[in-house]
Amino acid sequence: MPGVQPLQFDASLVVAFVRSIKNVLSTMVSIEATVGKPYIKEGEKPGHDVSSIVGFSGEVKGNVVVSFGMDTALKVVETFCGMPLDATSDDFADAVGELCNMIAGNAKKDFGLNAGIGIPSVVIGSNHTIARLRDVPCIVIPCTCSAGDFCVEVNIKQIGNN
Amino acid sequence: MPGVQPLQFDASLVVAFVRSIKNVLSTMVSIEATVGKPYIKEGEKPGHDVSSIVGFSGEVKGNVVVSFGMDTALKVVETFCGMPLDATSDDFADAVGELCNMIAGNAKKDFGLNAGIGIPSVVIGSNHTIARLRDVPCIVIPCTCSAGDFCVEVNIKQIGNN
Repeated sequence: MPGVQPLQFDASLVVAFVRSIKNVLSTMVSIEATVGKPYIKEGEKPGHDVSSIVGFSGEVKGNVVVSFGMDTALKVVETFCGMPLDATSDDFADAVGELCNMIAGNAKKDFGLNAGIGIPSVVIGSNHTIARLRDVPCIVIPCTCSAGDFCVEVNIKQIGNN
Repeated sequence: MPGVQPLQFDASLVVAFVRSIKNVLSTMVSIEATVGKPYIKEGEKPGHDVSSIVGFSGEVKGNVVVSFGMDTALKVVETFCGMPLDATSDDFADAVGELCNMIAGNAKKDFGLNAGIGIPSVVIGSNHTIARLRDVPCIVIPCTCSAGDFCVEVNIKQIGNN
């Protein structure tokens, strides 16, 4: 893409997500999440059961993935929706997508950049992996809450105006 | 989103994808694909082994998913890259993502709309499903080629200028 210059990865993007994860879970799901030390994802690809992917456009490009084990996803969604949902129902996928949407949207506000977010996709399947982009670091933010562990993978880059 | 009006689903979006699938496979992979009759995805959720998801932004919002069984993905990627690739390698995921990127980009040109596409995500995991958006039809385009069957799910909507 002519005119688009990949810049150094900006740690403030990750900080925005750390804040957002805690905010969204606390205010929207009434769950307090503890966020561990973010690290760069290397070769290893831990599998997940439920993932939601949301894409960024504009001055930030790439994808952010929120992944849960099935037990954790079921518990988080039950707390979020106020009732248990079957993992095969459309409502369950909608709830997981909405959580990812809120985490991405909340982080985006902190970027101070002209970025848009797309419509979340929700992947359900035991032990799937989601490949990372290779031209930008994939930062894994490990999280834990009363429902179990989950992680947020931030695989985005800031691009210049063109 | 204030000002954003969902419009009726436009069959020309699907036609653009039918053309694009045949074009990209023929010119970039040297595989002739036969495209079956598109249908609206209902409740059933057939599982896939390898999927690539690309998001649209601008005047078209939503996601398009290209899904393969593992055997078909391995064969298509081998033909595309000129060498067999291991399904766990980063190159394999890159190739699958690039195919999806080309199919989406090629279709986008036909839209006649101001739409952008994001960076593909690639999901690998036997028998995973990807939830569809409920406020827009998900059109499944079944395809077959010498490497096997695959499908393209077009889950996008045209939105008005705002």
